[in-house]
Amino acid sequence: MNILVLNCGSSSLKYQLINMENEEVLAKGLCERIGIDGSRIKHTPNGKETIIIEGDMPDHKNAVQYVIEALSSEEHGVIKTMDEINAVGHRVVHGGEEFACSTIITDEVIEAVVKCTDLAPLHNPANLIGIDACKQIMPNVPMVGVFDTAFHQTMPEKTYLYALPYDYYRKYKLRRYGFHGTSHKYVSHRAAEFLGKDIKDLKIVVCHLGNGASVCAVDGGKSIDTSMGLTPLEGLAMGTRCGDMDPAIIQFLADKEGLSIDEINTILNKKSGVLGISELSSDFRDLEDAIEEGNKKAELTMNVFCYRVAKYVGAYAAAMNGIDAVVFTAGLGENNGDVRSEVCSYLTFLGVDVDEEANKCRGIERDFSKEGARVRSVVIPTDEEMMIARETARLI
Amino acid sequence: MNILVLNCGSSSLKYQLINMENEEVLAKGLCERIGIDGSRIKHTPNGKETIIIEGDMPDHKNAVQYVIEALSSEEHGVIKTMDEINAVGHRVVHGGEEFACSTIITDEVIEAVVKCTDLAPLHNPANLIGIDACKQIMPNVPMVGVFDTAFHQTMPEKTYLYALPYDYYRKYKLRRYGFHGTSHKYVSHRAAEFLGKDIKDLKIVVCHLGNGASVCAVDGGKSIDTSMGLTPLEGLAMGTRCGDMDPAIIQFLADKEGLSIDEINTILNKKSGVLGISELSSDFRDLEDAIEEGNKKAELTMNVFCYRVAKYVGAYAAAMNGIDAVVFTAGLGENNGDVRSEVCSYLTFLGVDVDEEANKCRGIERDFSKEGARVRSVVIPTDEEMMIARETARLI
Repeated sequence: MNILVLNCGSSSLKYQLINMENEEVLAKGLCERIGIDGSRIKHTPNGKETIIIEGDMPDHKNAVQYVIEALSSEEHGVIKTMDEINAVGHRVVHGGEEFACSTIITDEVIEAVVKCTDLAPLHNPANLIGIDACKQIMPNVPMVGVFDTAFHQTMPEKTYLYALPYDYYRKYKLRRYGFHGTSHKYVSHRAAEFLGKDIKDLKIVVCHLGNGASVCAVDGGKSIDTSMGLTPLEGLAMGTRCGDMDPAIIQFLADKEGLSIDEINTILNKKSGVLGISELSSDFRDLEDAIEEGNKKAELTMNVFCYRVAKYVGAYAAAMNGIDAVVFTAGLGENNGDVRSEVCSYLTFLGVDVDEEANKCRGIERDFSKEGARVRSVVIPTDEEMMIARETARLI
Repeated sequence: MNILVLNCGSSSLKYQLINMENEEVLAKGLCERIGIDGSRIKHTPNGKETIIIEGDMPDHKNAVQYVIEALSSEEHGVIKTMDEINAVGHRVVHGGEEFACSTIITDEVIEAVVKCTDLAPLHNPANLIGIDACKQIMPNVPMVGVFDTAFHQTMPEKTYLYALPYDYYRKYKLRRYGFHGTSHKYVSHRAAEFLGKDIKDLKIVVCHLGNGASVCAVDGGKSIDTSMGLTPLEGLAMGTRCGDMDPAIIQFLADKEGLSIDEINTILNKKSGVLGISELSSDFRDLEDAIEEGNKKAELTMNVFCYRVAKYVGAYAAAMNGIDAVVFTAGLGENNGDVRSEVCSYLTFLGVDVDEEANKCRGIERDFSKEGARVRSVVIPTDEEMMIARETARLI
């Protein structure tokens, strides 16, 4: 069974075709600049070089057609015809309170996703366009929606309610949802397997540290708290997002800078975080280079970032009354041993004890704790696409 | 030596006259409705009944005059003349980065406090009016300013910087300041004394839980992090304040409810927190009564409140890499054993272990840990006025 995994942004489309018999990624790629001049596909068949196909993609339907052509072309294809695609798994950002798990996409489901658009006005419309495009091109191929928010629907009320007038929850479902759920689920379950434990017996904190970053408390396999909130702006300091801050700052900035709420929101999302503090870059690799050259602001930025991750781990240890493992994933979590080491340095009181030699690893599964450490510190590379494919295979 | 402690609000003035030889409170009281119709003093000489004196108080200068008359009156006074007031200690809310400790008030100090008004537009002007009134009435009596923010000026950069464009810090000193500093300092130092330890050797988390509420990490006697931020809106869920939330909620509410930033800020400050969730009251005593009657929303509100306190304690345990004592203070912290017990129930992983019998106490100093508990859980009633008087006595 081959499953096509799609992740649609407003002008982009990421895809992977996965053979579920052996979980082999047959090909993957990215359509860029959909609806803009100069649209193109970067297509990588498994084990071969990436090729770039320029194409005319005025909308996502055309993009999906280009993807299918690339996948089935004689030259660089990996299947003979579209008929070898048995199902499509779509990443959908916001499932609101409607979706606590993945689901086969029907007209009713599409309607419910439309209703959640209010909660994710930038993301859900793009996801819906991708679903619609597939429906037109492959009307008989079953589709599954896998939601970023679904894994967090197990959070209890005390976790997801903000201390705001309750009527906003009643009227608008204004609450904490959390994101990166597919990653947190995959990584926490994989960590349990890797440690040879039953996830039901484990209290795990997953640190998904990429350009977007969030922390999740996974108790017995279920998310009971997470740092992102109504939107992905809350929580950690991220590449360009501010994360937690005094909400009164918005009024302060409006007064001082004469900005509108929308303008401030853009600054909090695009000009803040690691970029904002460092005044250098949102990319941690640039910060690391700068630190090597003695840039004090870059060092401070890293310190702020790691300190805030560590505080979340501590907070979630309280949420679960203890912790068995801290798991690092995503770009920074998988590849940056210095960040892992710095975060863990705050956590020795919990029983975290890092083997610095073992921690010198990139992008591989590894328990980098010292032997006998009471709390395990682990790297588990995330694989959201594989998780979407598995969910899709399970449901069809 | 007698010290008059003043805490001026926009239309109120709280006072205590304290004999520093034996730290006896000679009298205390409150002027209400200054500048409004129906202004009056509630005056309580030590050991006597409270009397209410109606009076004409168009401004704070008149109010200070009424206070001095009440203190020195034949009938219910405690001193003979104003000359027996040797110094005045003023509570000042915001000292910005200018004041890391209490200070004798000079013209330069007044100017510096005026400069901090931007950061506390509601509070500092009232404090300044009180200073000015005393200067006019008692020009030769020395005055000391004791700042709510001063104790937190030891926070390191990684703690006080928000992940915002650094230029806002450069231009406006936009950063975390923290409040309740006088209380956190008093309570943490008193807790060390009470436990018979040198505060330099202790990692303490102070939970100041009143209608306003904040948590502070005190490492070796110094504040290294605290939950309130640029303003007292950040952090815990409070009586009517929202505390931490996704900053994107402000835009969401502006869109949905058609409100301005100022209107939203008022809701976040006055209609949120415990009042917002419970839809019942901002007063925890009302919530407790409702819980007894089986009100589920009141119970949920308490759960949210305690959960968030516990998460801060966990976060600050990470900030200090361990913890020796959790200390509860202020209205709720001193008087509500259920809240203390619920917060501590999350913290047994740290070594907190509550003696439920010992925890049945109100408003007294007590270590309510079980014998042998690794982390002490303690009640220390706060006394901001005494702290202000001590600081004043120390400086003059």
